[in-house]
Amino acid sequence: MTSVALYTINNSARSIARLCRASRSAHGTADFHSSVARYSTLRKCAFLPGGKWSFIIAGTRQMSQASPGRISLGRYGKGVFLVAGAAAVTGVLAAGVSHFQRAEMATKISKIEEVEGDMRERCKSFMSPPVTDIKVLEQRKDAMSTRMEMLIMETQAAFCKALEEVDGGTFKVDSWTRKEGGGGISCVMQDGKVFEKAGVNVSVVFGNLTEEAARQMRSRGKVLKGKDGKLPFCAMGVSSVIHPKNPHIPTVHFNYRYFEIEEADGTKQWWFGGGTDLTPVYIDLEDAAHFHKTLKKACDKHHPKFYPDFKKWCDNYFYIRHRGETRGIGGIFFDDLDSPNQEEAFNFVKSCAKTVVPCYLPIVYKHLNDSFTPEEKDWQQVRRGRYVEFNLVYDRGVKFGLATPGSRIESILMSLPLTARWEYMHEPKKGTKEAEILEVLRNPKEWI
Amino acid sequence: MTSVALYTINNSARSIARLCRASRSAHGTADFHSSVARYSTLRKCAFLPGGKWSFIIAGTRQMSQASPGRISLGRYGKGVFLVAGAAAVTGVLAAGVSHFQRAEMATKISKIEEVEGDMRERCKSFMSPPVTDIKVLEQRKDAMSTRMEMLIMETQAAFCKALEEVDGGTFKVDSWTRKEGGGGISCVMQDGKVFEKAGVNVSVVFGNLTEEAARQMRSRGKVLKGKDGKLPFCAMGVSSVIHPKNPHIPTVHFNYRYFEIEEADGTKQWWFGGGTDLTPVYIDLEDAAHFHKTLKKACDKHHPKFYPDFKKWCDNYFYIRHRGETRGIGGIFFDDLDSPNQEEAFNFVKSCAKTVVPCYLPIVYKHLNDSFTPEEKDWQQVRRGRYVEFNLVYDRGVKFGLATPGSRIESILMSLPLTARWEYMHEPKKGTKEAEILEVLRNPKEWI
Repeated sequence: MTSVALYTINNSARSIARLCRASRSAHGTADFHSSVARYSTLRKCAFLPGGKWSFIIAGTRQMSQASPGRISLGRYGKGVFLVAGAAAVTGVLAAGVSHFQRAEMATKISKIEEVEGDMRERCKSFMSPPVTDIKVLEQRKDAMSTRMEMLIMETQAAFCKALEEVDGGTFKVDSWTRKEGGGGISCVMQDGKVFEKAGVNVSVVFGNLTEEAARQMRSRGKVLKGKDGKLPFCAMGVSSVIHPKNPHIPTVHFNYRYFEIEEADGTKQWWFGGGTDLTPVYIDLEDAAHFHKTLKKACDKHHPKFYPDFKKWCDNYFYIRHRGETRGIGGIFFDDLDSPNQEEAFNFVKSCAKTVVPCYLPIVYKHLNDSFTPEEKDWQQVRRGRYVEFNLVYDRGVKFGLATPGSRIESILMSLPLTARWEYMHEPKKGTKEAEILEVLRNPKEWI
Repeated sequence: MTSVALYTINNSARSIARLCRASRSAHGTADFHSSVARYSTLRKCAFLPGGKWSFIIAGTRQMSQASPGRISLGRYGKGVFLVAGAAAVTGVLAAGVSHFQRAEMATKISKIEEVEGDMRERCKSFMSPPVTDIKVLEQRKDAMSTRMEMLIMETQAAFCKALEEVDGGTFKVDSWTRKEGGGGISCVMQDGKVFEKAGVNVSVVFGNLTEEAARQMRSRGKVLKGKDGKLPFCAMGVSSVIHPKNPHIPTVHFNYRYFEIEEADGTKQWWFGGGTDLTPVYIDLEDAAHFHKTLKKACDKHHPKFYPDFKKWCDNYFYIRHRGETRGIGGIFFDDLDSPNQEEAFNFVKSCAKTVVPCYLPIVYKHLNDSFTPEEKDWQQVRRGRYVEFNLVYDRGVKFGLATPGSRIESILMSLPLTARWEYMHEPKKGTKEAEILEVLRNPKEWI
């Protein structure tokens, strides 16, 4: 049913987007409220739920305000951020699902297939066969690692197809293996009609945690007891960065990931992480509100504190400290999510993954034919430079990936734009549109 | 006399360069040997010595081959790399020269003015008044901090003027102060006729070492005894990165710096660091030989091991580990130089600083009118992307600067090119000029 739902989302997004475009051409600049109404229609299509969202967590997260750019660990869970595609590795995948240390598996679904659809049928819509052999996946179809791999493959396919439809181009699909264990599927469209560079990457890696990774995790609060010094782990995720050509279409980034570590006594620690955030070149209040409202609606189905907390976390994380600016206008960001139980945490992540198309595509279609000046293109290139600065200096996933043996560099650096610019002492004049967004990046605000 | 010597170098470089250009236009591509002869003439002009170079150090440096991209500390000295313009702060400058812990001051010059020229007269040639008030400099004219500040100001001026002459453009000169102590002079020429972005920066900063900086230094072997936890320091240097427009003119970088720390008992630790390296887009054997020979000649006057050791150090330091490539074709790089005594170490640094113009300018003039294709420009942009990767991911000076409160970000990131490009899975075809340089970057070689 999920594949059907995704197909519906995808088709709905296209229909609504076409509607947006038509409406825009017919009436010029669409007004704020009618656009929000359209966005709402779209969200209704998008959120055909594949499960129930009803759990409540007591307590609130404590955010660290003292140290911008750094992430505090809240009460949703403890652990360490580790982007999928940038990790170490062994045999965890094959171990199946059992003994989750802190999970209660309160709502164990007995008939996952019934809810999520036939596995081979679902694979047909993917950009490539999954990283793990389909026979292995079928053998352990109830395992979270299997369900997450299916979700990230589906998310990749849905997003790529939506982008291909708007661009007219085709993604180059590279399947790759990692000699230390696992592999991935990188989909890249470069120098397209609409997109300067669009990358959507899936990776499923496993093996033994490197000493450095284990040290990092321990320093962030994880208690890890290895067997003979070894800590088998499995990390998987889907991540994407889309850089459009037109400076009026924002860059988007999302990443949803799952991590498992097996300890000496056979128990497993697991957690989810992820987020979706927007990096416009110019402020469009309507776009910002649509983007954040779509995320909030997805979050609110799971916990009323998710959106406000994860929005704040996002602003704190995507912060270019040396510039005193956030990278963009945010969205949501979370990590180490290991409560209230694995099923509910997965459902939340699934919900987030399904907002990607409805969050972004309507914005793309809306600005598809916006004209722009060379000066606007230049400002976009300067902002691209800031994007590079964040990704190379601060992004922990990138840093971890670059430092990890066997990482696929091209997939990690796929997030960098095709072109960027650094002008000495660039400072927009007061009262300009460029100054307007800088003001927002320097002082993050609420969008809804 | 130094200012006279520099003027001579500068004028000689121009004359020879004009000769190169004329010769090139008249005869097409100049042959290798005649070009080397021209380079030799130029070197003779360049090395009008301001002092004697005759000391010998026993022993050799041990290079760390096991960890590419990391620098081992050799027997020339121990300490920590700290780029000028990126440091912490107090009163060290005013303390004058005395009690150098490991220096013997064997050849204390009694009449520095006689050798190095009248101070006010020398200042007239600078791009701006020095960072330190001229009256203060005059009061402690024998202090190494004064002599080094004069040298870096002179180096900045000589290089800027040589670049202005070839470009026809003018440097924008920004004097800035750092509220924690000290300041700098940033000279930038952007989007010129020849240079896409040319930055030449001087900084003189002082204050108390931050806890983080002290920790870094201690971890690298420095024994530092602070008073009430405070370690006054002074750091100064000149650094430059030049990115030309024409892909046949290489990028050059140099940096020469001096560091002092005052301990609880009033003794001072000091050291010099620096280097000059070339980053071409395409290999030109003649250019590479000229560049390295010029550096070797400067080094050989001081110690026969300097060039081979510092050449290797340079290849190790400017290494983009995640790409398995060096940033360019190297040059020299050294740090923590605190022997055999301060006078001789300074003389070596002076010698290096004076090679900057004769190392680079003849190469610029030689390729000034080279034609290039859009494909060659694209390859240059891809290499610019690698330059950004090195500077943001590995360069310790940049990292330290970005992490240090009060740093002037625009001066630190001045080294980034105006434009850069990241193409997914870019790999030049075998047998092309692009593949040729990649081969060299992956397997550093000897050029002379």
